Amino acid sequence: MPAIPPDPFPLIAAIDLGSNSFHMVLARVDQGEIRILERLGEKVQLAAGIDEQRLLSEEAMQRGLDCLGRFAQLINGLPQGAVRIVGTNALRIARNRKEFIRRAEALLGHPVDVVAGLEEARLIYLGVSHTFPDMPGKRLVVDIGGGSTEFIIGQRFEPLLRESLQMGCVSFTQRFFADGKISAARYAQAYTAARLELMSREQGMRRQGWQEAIGASGTIRSVGLAIQAGGRGSGEVNAQGLVWLKRKLLKCSDVDKVDFEGVKPERRGIFPAGLAILEAIFDALGLETMTHSEGALREGVLYDLIGRHQHEDVRQRTLSALMERYHVDLEQAARVEAKALSALDQVAAAWNLQEDWHRELLSWAARVHEVGLDIAHYHYHKHGAYLIEHCDLAGFSRQDQQVLALLVRGHRRNIPLDKFRDAEADTESLVRLCILLRFAILFHHIRGTQEMPKVRLEVGERSLELIFPEGWLAANPLTQADFAQEAEWLQRIEYRLTAR
Amino acid sequence: MPAIPPDPFPLIAAIDLGSNSFHMVLARVDQGEIRILERLGEKVQLAAGIDEQRLLSEEAMQRGLDCLGRFAQLINGLPQGAVRIVGTNALRIARNRKEFIRRAEALLGHPVDVVAGLEEARLIYLGVSHTFPDMPGKRLVVDIGGGSTEFIIGQRFEPLLRESLQMGCVSFTQRFFADGKISAARYAQAYTAARLELMSREQGMRRQGWQEAIGASGTIRSVGLAIQAGGRGSGEVNAQGLVWLKRKLLKCSDVDKVDFEGVKPERRGIFPAGLAILEAIFDALGLETMTHSEGALREGVLYDLIGRHQHEDVRQRTLSALMERYHVDLEQAARVEAKALSALDQVAAAWNLQEDWHRELLSWAARVHEVGLDIAHYHYHKHGAYLIEHCDLAGFSRQDQQVLALLVRGHRRNIPLDKFRDAEADTESLVRLCILLRFAILFHHIRGTQEMPKVRLEVGERSLELIFPEGWLAANPLTQADFAQEAEWLQRIEYRLTAR
Repeated sequence: MPAIPPDPFPLIAAIDLGSNSFHMVLARVDQGEIRILERLGEKVQLAAGIDEQRLLSEEAMQRGLDCLGRFAQLINGLPQGAVRIVGTNALRIARNRKEFIRRAEALLGHPVDVVAGLEEARLIYLGVSHTFPDMPGKRLVVDIGGGSTEFIIGQRFEPLLRESLQMGCVSFTQRFFADGKISAARYAQAYTAARLELMSREQGMRRQGWQEAIGASGTIRSVGLAIQAGGRGSGEVNAQGLVWLKRKLLKCSDVDKVDFEGVKPERRGIFPAGLAILEAIFDALGLETMTHSEGALREGVLYDLIGRHQHEDVRQRTLSALMERYHVDLEQAARVEAKALSALDQVAAAWNLQEDWHRELLSWAARVHEVGLDIAHYHYHKHGAYLIEHCDLAGFSRQDQQVLALLVRGHRRNIPLDKFRDAEADTESLVRLCILLRFAILFHHIRGTQEMPKVRLEVGERSLELIFPEGWLAANPLTQADFAQEAEWLQRIEYRLTAR
Repeated sequence: MPAIPPDPFPLIAAIDLGSNSFHMVLARVDQGEIRILERLGEKVQLAAGIDEQRLLSEEAMQRGLDCLGRFAQLINGLPQGAVRIVGTNALRIARNRKEFIRRAEALLGHPVDVVAGLEEARLIYLGVSHTFPDMPGKRLVVDIGGGSTEFIIGQRFEPLLRESLQMGCVSFTQRFFADGKISAARYAQAYTAARLELMSREQGMRRQGWQEAIGASGTIRSVGLAIQAGGRGSGEVNAQGLVWLKRKLLKCSDVDKVDFEGVKPERRGIFPAGLAILEAIFDALGLETMTHSEGALREGVLYDLIGRHQHEDVRQRTLSALMERYHVDLEQAARVEAKALSALDQVAAAWNLQEDWHRELLSWAARVHEVGLDIAHYHYHKHGAYLIEHCDLAGFSRQDQQVLALLVRGHRRNIPLDKFRDAEADTESLVRLCILLRFAILFHHIRGTQEMPKVRLEVGERSLELIFPEGWLAANPLTQADFAQEAEWLQRIEYRLTAR
């Protein structure tokens, strides 16, 4: 989780750990606008290193880390919060991603966020909408990646519909062209597989409609350039050009022969799969032409980053929408949030909870801890955790959602220490944040019907003492009983709670 | 799951497997009205036979089965669908309930439905609203059971707010009065525990408001009678009477001494806990008086039963509400439902799927299979199953929800045979219904954009053959590829699918 500093940075960077290649952009921020200073990209083919057990091979990890070692030099010295690193489909899939992320973070000195497919789509659209000439009407943006393909229909800066499908030029190459041989039958198989993926979604997209289709990935650019080289276009992909290019491709028996102008040598291997996917998209959506946008995911990450710092944090909007959708009692959430943050102020130094993400996470958890009530009251903390882990939450990384879900899961009844230990964050900090959240909730257990007194918190390494005004607890035996029960829950995780 | 016959029955019965006692009512249905012919009740104290591992002891099971053996005689010969048996909190909690249910069903010849707390609350209100004199304004209904206490605020026949809390006169007796000794300190502990349970809910109930409070359980009736015997009321519970009765109770050192007029000898042991819970409810909700209704859960079950047969099935309304809430594509759901049911018609005899519940379940599953899309597309079949398993679905038993969730879980990708085997229903029938559902979904994969042909289904013991019109499949290679992929999924559960 990135720390968010109070002031914007002059230099920011984004790294995109894609399934086919890794990219980095370094930019200068100037009055809310971004000027790209540097672009780096390397073919890593992380997705090709994932086996049937969904384990990323050591060899593929090393390819990735070698590349990041080269990137690292350029962001050397940038402060926390100025660099955002996002992982996409290959890291979503790989079961041992934790290992890779740990090593990547050690190398780069900045956190790696794995983002869900729909979050990736949102970031891509953000990048396209900020870099492509503005126009009225709706646009369809398509990004064919190594492991997944994202579709966004949006208008101006607003995505209206997002889709993320499990098809990509690296994964399809492995499925249909693993040995590098090309044939009409194999091409047809890849094309059909892509059509099947699209089938249940094409109607929804056509219903939404668009005036212009924009491609935002290397696959689409190289197809456009190959068509242009054949004199059948000026860089865009068009339906006639695709037919011509496919015929040309099927004359090659092997990927080594795909030495088409416009297709870089390192893209030859994945070219047949990419073309099949693109043709399937054209047919499923009835496209005639698709222009290309340079800006995409990486630019979106940069704009998201300066949005967090400057005008608005999309995550706040996401949480508000979630609270509304699941009918959260907003007054209670606000009471609990205020209490949790004031408790954090009292103990942050002693409990080593002084990073910005500690404060953010506690505030988020307080706001959404009751979302599960909308499913059922029984075990609602578990339902809430389920929703937060699985919902599409714009602006949040997978890890954000995981730790937020954990705090919601642990906000009442037992604190599942084993789950906290598995999380991709410091266990002790999470446990302490959870204890503070629970305190704030119990403190407002009666939901605003009673004026509550000031309480002082004193903490030790494994203890929390609540000091109420003299005589208050004795006069309020329910609160007393509440904290006595809480002391029993905390004892199970070896924390001592006393209230006096 | 009960089979639902097309015509109403002249005689119907309801059995309530409560945590404290089992009850049965036998009634005659006359033009939609119910006339009770017979009432039976026995103290079984199932809840007292549940240990810390949440296992129901053999001894407690036997107590229950002995009682059911006596009940069985009276419903001997009633057809399927004329008897509904519901289990409440003790069976919700007991991890080995399957064993008890199996033996009870063998004895009674009718299915046992375990209902969730909020469903129990709905049925209680249905019983009260049909048997208590009608009045304008809202009423609060409270049912203190052996393991849980249900609260309903409703107007006429409509429940507006329902709550189910984990406190009951048997479970509280075990926690605070296990050895039969009575003291002011123990009473205060039980009272405080009840207040803590109520704390987070009392505000919501008070905000809803009511004109009249009605009690609907033996605990409340016996407290009212004891107050009346003391000359402090005429059968209702009132605040002053409670104070007097509590003082009287605390003069007894032991439950054996609670030989109060109005309290049956077999209720003495649970009387202190019941009184403490009732006093906590009076204080938390600011009640002054509470009258008593004879009709409650059992009557509600009877009215629910005739509703299913005659005017309306609340489950249909529940599913419609669920589909709306989670934004299901209604047209697609209707297409899939129609196709699934017409497929069932073709194969029901050969696949032994001729019971009414087979048809019902398939229809329900077709309607709700896409609810999980509202959480996220990725793994949406799992999200849908989660929602259906955990949501409060009025009219459905826990088992209904479990098998419905399973069909939703299995509607795409792999069919989790192990989970199907664990279900409380015949595995083979569930698998076959799931195969039919998947067929209907694949058949309408393109979501209504193409006129689909008539297809003939032929089934064998472990095979399904789809016979399309001559040449149609060859002309529609996507559908062909779809069913080829499906054949691979079905092969994993040893079913052979062919399409020609």
